[in-house]
Amino acid sequence: MLTRMPLITLTTDFGYKDPFVGMMKGAIFNINPSALIVDITHDINPYNIREAAIAVDVSHSFFPPTTVHVVVVDPGVGSNRRPILVVTDQHYFVGPDNGVFSLIYTSNSRTLDVRHIISEHYFLPQKGSTFHGRDIFAPVAAWLTKGIESAKFGDIITDYVTLPFPSVSMPTKTTHEGEVIYIDRFGNAITNIKSSEVDALYSINPEAKLRVLIKGKRVEIKNYYSQVSDKELYALINSSGYLELFVYRGNAAGEFNIKTGDTVGVILNV
Amino acid sequence: MLTRMPLITLTTDFGYKDPFVGMMKGAIFNINPSALIVDITHDINPYNIREAAIAVDVSHSFFPPTTVHVVVVDPGVGSNRRPILVVTDQHYFVGPDNGVFSLIYTSNSRTLDVRHIISEHYFLPQKGSTFHGRDIFAPVAAWLTKGIESAKFGDIITDYVTLPFPSVSMPTKTTHEGEVIYIDRFGNAITNIKSSEVDALYSINPEAKLRVLIKGKRVEIKNYYSQVSDKELYALINSSGYLELFVYRGNAAGEFNIKTGDTVGVILNV
Amino acid sequence: MLTRMPLITLTTDFGYKDPFVGMMKGAIFNINPSALIVDITHDINPYNIREAAIAVDVSHSFFPPTTVHVVVVDPGVGSNRRPILVVTDQHYFVGPDNGVFSLIYTSNSRTLDVRHIISEHYFLPQKGSTFHGRDIFAPVAAWLTKGIESAKFGDIITDYVTLPFPSVSMPTKTTHEGEVIYIDRFGNAITNIKSSEVDALYSINPEAKLRVLIKGKRVEIKNYYSQVSDKELYALINSSGYLELFVYRGNAAGEFNIKTGDTVGVILNV
Repeated sequence: MLTRMPLITLTTDFGYKDPFVGMMKGAIFNINPSALIVDITHDINPYNIREAAIAVDVSHSFFPPTTVHVVVVDPGVGSNRRPILVVTDQHYFVGPDNGVFSLIYTSNSRTLDVRHIISEHYFLPQKGSTFHGRDIFAPVAAWLTKGIESAKFGDIITDYVTLPFPSVSMPTKTTHEGEVIYIDRFGNAITNIKSSEVDALYSINPEAKLRVLIKGKRVEIKNYYSQVSDKELYALINSSGYLELFVYRGNAAGEFNIKTGDTVGVILNV
Repeated sequence: MLTRMPLITLTTDFGYKDPFVGMMKGAIFNINPSALIVDITHDINPYNIREAAIAVDVSHSFFPPTTVHVVVVDPGVGSNRRPILVVTDQHYFVGPDNGVFSLIYTSNSRTLDVRHIISEHYFLPQKGSTFHGRDIFAPVAAWLTKGIESAKFGDIITDYVTLPFPSVSMPTKTTHEGEVIYIDRFGNAITNIKSSEVDALYSINPEAKLRVLIKGKRVEIKNYYSQVSDKELYALINSSGYLELFVYRGNAAGEFNIKTGDTVGVILNV
Repeated sequence: MLTRMPLITLTTDFGYKDPFVGMMKGAIFNINPSALIVDITHDINPYNIREAAIAVDVSHSFFPPTTVHVVVVDPGVGSNRRPILVVTDQHYFVGPDNGVFSLIYTSNSRTLDVRHIISEHYFLPQKGSTFHGRDIFAPVAAWLTKGIESAKFGDIITDYVTLPFPSVSMPTKTTHEGEVIYIDRFGNAITNIKSSEVDALYSINPEAKLRVLIKGKRVEIKNYYSQVSDKELYALINSSGYLELFVYRGNAAGEFNIKTGDTVGVILNV
């Protein structure tokens, strides 16, 4: 087994104003003062499980093997929804069983164990209502970085919650249809259409051109943002490997009224 | 004496846009490259000493003994208000003598020393007007994590500034009256009424029901957020041990127009 | 040569919501798990190269020698604008060749080397369009903290991009004229007039008074914020050594309609 990195990432909807994230870090350092903690984001929209699922999906692979990824977007905290530990061949994931790891389940990990965390002696004693981020998830992550085996936290379960995520369809042999799944700070509209799906269309006819269809517009695919200088809408394959709509030094979502859930097509223009 | 953890927490009103917090961290690492720094929050409302007092009060106990908590909400910087070091039996606190540690003074620490920081050889040389966060508080915190004794920084004082915080009264034998002291990111309205005070009412008559009174409404007390599914106002004892008003997956403060300072009662409904 | 501190600072326009900064940190820890990472700010206005240039200029000197400062405000990413490594006698700077290090070039470093980063074996393999922050700048910074010599990353260039920054003029022997270059979170309006320039006026006639002129107002220079208690506009030399306009516990920019680019004069009132 690999030596464990004492590296823990945090993805929450706690924001940057309240002291909740600080409390979680205190709980981690109480158990493992050698821990390295990286904030992925604490600005997930409150209760937005899908947004957190995307954040952890696109970011986790850039971390070293055995990193522990903690996700706390947890509207059901305190109910009988289970705390879980997900173990892939590369990483650990700790959080609530509410679907927030759905995209990890469908990634191509060679192994996948999901465990129901029940070993209370690893938890913080709780007062008042539950704050599992601080009292369960942070301590379990810290103990994992100390080398505690995942089996110690609870048994394997198979009925974990999976949220449906929009999939890409092929209405014709030369068309892929997906949707906008995330708008970033720059107003770029990121779709669920992968570079491999775009490449598959190119391979039908390398001479032909691809066009992206969104809200009645036909949009060209470029290689990078500053390849254009006008303020029109363009598309590219972004740095996470997904089709993305952008305006150079502008705000595509704002200027072209693009929203999460909008349909996006890619069509081979033979 | 305990071995000191080189752990420093930061609570400021500097925000996340300006480079002030980064400068403080540079000053710390210049003195102790082994320091571990945790941001509690930098989004205290500008000059809001009470808000900072609450943030450090609810978060500090989750950190290991000998952690140094630096608080910089400091409208009087540069005047003759004193920089102070507060030492309890568990933690160190460094910041301005403006009442920001009021809730630490009234916590149940077995020991409490407050020292006026005057030893300038531990400071950064200052240019222009003073930035005590960077030039005094950060360096003093860093030197503390290097093992410098607290007495080296200055003498004990007893006339430190204490801000009055609202207290909970008992207008009748079966009623506690307090107020909303903080609204969190989720719109939860946190009161100054402690779980022990709520328990005291329960102990009068365990058969009876408690109700929370706020803005003419009578509100039920639940055990956790997702115990309800409607959009009504409810209360619970939160994870810091205080009575809190909430709307499940909603925003209690926004939807019911609750503000800091609003009166909250807890009444035994015999 | 000094032993290198494994300290890396990050200044970007990526914001706090998207997972981009987290990805960069993952890339750094993948190469050097002993790295110490400090966020200067991620809230540079999107594409605002000048704002980033100021942030890195005022903050870098508070960090230990050999710290690596990474700046990613990079509208030209993916084009032929070069990734560069800047080496002064004290620090390393890594980022795009778009002028973001202009104020480092004109600082008084005894030595200054600017290198075009071309050694791709230090980069992350790229998929889709380029994210140089994650795939080039973060890895190069991490390798620098591992002791790789700067010459290994690419050759010295002399035609690097320098952005013009506003300078301070002397329209008369007793007047300096500069401008507002930054508004901070508190609404303080920071100018490009240095304390040395103000001191030069004082030295002409120490008996005379200085006044600051802005938007038709004549403003007094104070020593620190809380030296006044009214809500008028005042000036002081701030903690970075620049002339700054402020309102005590107020918001100078908001209340007096001061904007970046506004002309500011300092006049000797003989």
